Amino acid sequence: MGSIFFSEFMGTTLLLLLGLGVGANVSLAGAKGKGGGWLLVNFGWGLAVFAGVYAAAPTGAHLNPAVSTGLWIAGQDFAPGIPATLPHFATYVLAQLLGAMFGALLTYLAYKKHFDTEPDPATKLGVFATGPAIPTPAWNTITEALATFVLVYVVLLFGNTPSGLGPLAVAMLVVGIGASLGGPTGYAINPARDLGPRILHALLPMKGKGTSNWSYAWIPVAGPLLGGAIAGALYHLTPLIPTAG
Amino acid sequence: MGSIFFSEFMGTTLLLLLGLGVGANVSLAGAKGKGGGWLLVNFGWGLAVFAGVYAAAPTGAHLNPAVSTGLWIAGQDFAPGIPATLPHFATYVLAQLLGAMFGALLTYLAYKKHFDTEPDPATKLGVFATGPAIPTPAWNTITEALATFVLVYVVLLFGNTPSGLGPLAVAMLVVGIGASLGGPTGYAINPARDLGPRILHALLPMKGKGTSNWSYAWIPVAGPLLGGAIAGALYHLTPLIPTAG
Amino acid sequence: MGSIFFSEFMGTTLLLLLGLGVGANVSLAGAKGKGGGWLLVNFGWGLAVFAGVYAAAPTGAHLNPAVSTGLWIAGQDFAPGIPATLPHFATYVLAQLLGAMFGALLTYLAYKKHFDTEPDPATKLGVFATGPAIPTPAWNTITEALATFVLVYVVLLFGNTPSGLGPLAVAMLVVGIGASLGGPTGYAINPARDLGPRILHALLPMKGKGTSNWSYAWIPVAGPLLGGAIAGALYHLTPLIPTAG
Amino acid sequence: MGSIFFSEFMGTTLLLLLGLGVGANVSLAGAKGKGGGWLLVNFGWGLAVFAGVYAAAPTGAHLNPAVSTGLWIAGQDFAPGIPATLPHFATYVLAQLLGAMFGALLTYLAYKKHFDTEPDPATKLGVFATGPAIPTPAWNTITEALATFVLVYVVLLFGNTPSGLGPLAVAMLVVGIGASLGGPTGYAINPARDLGPRILHALLPMKGKGTSNWSYAWIPVAGPLLGGAIAGALYHLTPLIPTAG
Repeated sequence: MGSIFFSEFMGTTLLLLLGLGVGANVSLAGAKGKGGGWLLVNFGWGLAVFAGVYAAAPTGAHLNPAVSTGLWIAGQDFAPGIPATLPHFATYVLAQLLGAMFGALLTYLAYKKHFDTEPDPATKLGVFATGPAIPTPAWNTITEALATFVLVYVVLLFGNTPSGLGPLAVAMLVVGIGASLGGPTGYAINPARDLGPRILHALLPMKGKGTSNWSYAWIPVAGPLLGGAIAGALYHLTPLIPTAG
Repeated sequence: MGSIFFSEFMGTTLLLLLGLGVGANVSLAGAKGKGGGWLLVNFGWGLAVFAGVYAAAPTGAHLNPAVSTGLWIAGQDFAPGIPATLPHFATYVLAQLLGAMFGALLTYLAYKKHFDTEPDPATKLGVFATGPAIPTPAWNTITEALATFVLVYVVLLFGNTPSGLGPLAVAMLVVGIGASLGGPTGYAINPARDLGPRILHALLPMKGKGTSNWSYAWIPVAGPLLGGAIAGALYHLTPLIPTAG
Repeated sequence: MGSIFFSEFMGTTLLLLLGLGVGANVSLAGAKGKGGGWLLVNFGWGLAVFAGVYAAAPTGAHLNPAVSTGLWIAGQDFAPGIPATLPHFATYVLAQLLGAMFGALLTYLAYKKHFDTEPDPATKLGVFATGPAIPTPAWNTITEALATFVLVYVVLLFGNTPSGLGPLAVAMLVVGIGASLGGPTGYAINPARDLGPRILHALLPMKGKGTSNWSYAWIPVAGPLLGGAIAGALYHLTPLIPTAG
Repeated sequence: MGSIFFSEFMGTTLLLLLGLGVGANVSLAGAKGKGGGWLLVNFGWGLAVFAGVYAAAPTGAHLNPAVSTGLWIAGQDFAPGIPATLPHFATYVLAQLLGAMFGALLTYLAYKKHFDTEPDPATKLGVFATGPAIPTPAWNTITEALATFVLVYVVLLFGNTPSGLGPLAVAMLVVGIGASLGGPTGYAINPARDLGPRILHALLPMKGKGTSNWSYAWIPVAGPLLGGAIAGALYHLTPLIPTAG
């Protein structure tokens, strides 16, 4: 159980350190990547997943409660030798949430002077947590659910299409989801990715800090869990003809 | 037959959801990727193919009537265990067209509030269907045929060059075709990709909706089919010396 | 011999169709990728190589007289079953040059209306042939030689580092060389890539066409051949300890 | 020992030639990639690693004293057949430092006329050596240590996750680290990468040359060594459950 915790914790730490890092780089005052554009953000998050997957490979590198939920509903093991059970699920999710908080803390340290220099509280919050371009709870939830459905459904299918891509497959998938479906809500597609850093933002004694926008916080939790669950359910209906791949 | 339909339908749904999604993200009012540039569009579409190929791997992941046409003319099976026959062809194409329509509907839902906010009818249509930079039917057809020829000819050759890339190979090929040959017509290179969403655009009760530009609609059907057919024919002339890869 | 010609001809045709295509897309009036930036150009050329390598896999996919020269000097076969001999070399280079001309013709057809619309003769020539940012024959030659040295030396080493990347390895290498060493001369790094389209530019009855800038034409021939030759020579000195890859 | 030196020297030469090259391309007067953006820089450096790894594959392609340090502390061999000993460590680091200087010299030659044309001494120095966006020694050191920790820790884990990516894995990792954590200091993440070119900058008789900013020079040495050492130490605590990859 300790090994499971360590694996998911370290993987999610790296995911958030690099993922929030690219957000800091494109938005905070003085950062060298400021204004670097959406594709830079997409590659930053995709390769954050890439690094995180190596660190959490022994546990299947979920890094995301929506992935754990989808695998469980799909009737899959969490990883070879780790069946989907409630204690395992709780361990995964706790490790993911705490790893996300710790990764966010490391990003804060990496960009400490830029947070100090940045005058806009909303920009600071934007490094930690996602927010909608057009706030409408129902549609924002639908967007997050659709994007996460794509993530979890394709991840479930990876096993059916042998390739030598390893962790690059999910990295490129996340680049694509961000490029295509990140426009309305900034693609949390992972409850831990949004909630963990938002909690840290609320706790951190950052100067010139604004609200943590708690009224939005349930959407990047509920939307991804819904999308992951639908993916897991649809997986049962998917005919898996063996392929030469 | 139902399994074939499901596979191509799901794959084309994911292809269009992500592919049209990147178009929505770079063009619709308020989207976070607005103005993100051509390479973002290219990666969005390339990785849309990537996701779609995983979903349709059991049927060879054509996702495109031009690919099915090219394989048939080349004398290849559609997939291991699925010979190229008229009933199979009809099943593939119907699944691709309906999947394209359903994927377009999902993109519309993902970006619903941005479609509502976007004032320009042409921009809205541009998310669904391609259009030429300089309208000239003959040259636009040639451009689409050339770009699709590259797609189908190289896909036919994949089998001759073993690699561990799996679905990433066709994804990167589509990134490259878009970067290089997408400039004049916006690279449909797939009759289902253009016709399916155009039909949906005509049917959807979208407010402030303009024309569906039906006068152009035959070009992204005819051009890609022509290009795919030429690729299939040229494949017969291609000397396939075994290679160490 | 006919099979060798066909393979290198088709591969170089695809290389030039896509490679010149991205140049047309970022520079010609009205193209949808206009102003798309240097990284778009780099990915366009890199993935042009990717497509070309699949088409020319049976002959080792040189696509470039500097690669053929480097392999010959390195004492390597051109491909499994194709020893480096003068008749083979002549066949490769002729196929590469004619393929480059034919690929350039296809790019011209794909972007025909944009060439017609583009008012600037230098921009038109820039789609076909490279040119220096700061014309100084000696330094331009050094830049082309250095960039081609990297290409050919690393290609020679591919065989010593097993991976499942297949054609993606050389594609990404070319993305990198363009990003890093393309700044001064626009990275021909291939005599056929520059000379073939330049000849076509001189022959094509294009309206509003300017000079083909023949005074520069020898540099993207001599520089790459020099770089390829140095790479082949250095390969003899390279200790090739077997690696676990 | 000579073979080890040659391998690391050539690899680090290619790393610096291409890595500094992209910096020259985006910043020096007249270069075709000028203003190309942060993602171009990230891909330039990532693919510089890619090329360098092929050249140094026989020695495990450290190319970086922080990697050698991390492997040593982690109790790993430097490469198959090369145990971590002080003479080997000294050979690796010397080869890396001299290779970095030689690669920087080649970049200078490739961009010679652009260095001559560039009026700003700080821009010239910026091609050779890194510098902080907001100079604060402690925080700059922390940023470099965190970014290098990610690099070395994930490289140590590569062996535990079989894939067919070969050298592309570390290339993409470096793209990601640059995108995400390069904002505050320009990501040296390698003592040889910064110190070697800085020494060359001090030695080269370049006209209009400014200071080599020696007061900052210890940070991109100390930060990366610290990060690599922490990665090596943490590796001992990492539970390595066998994985199906």
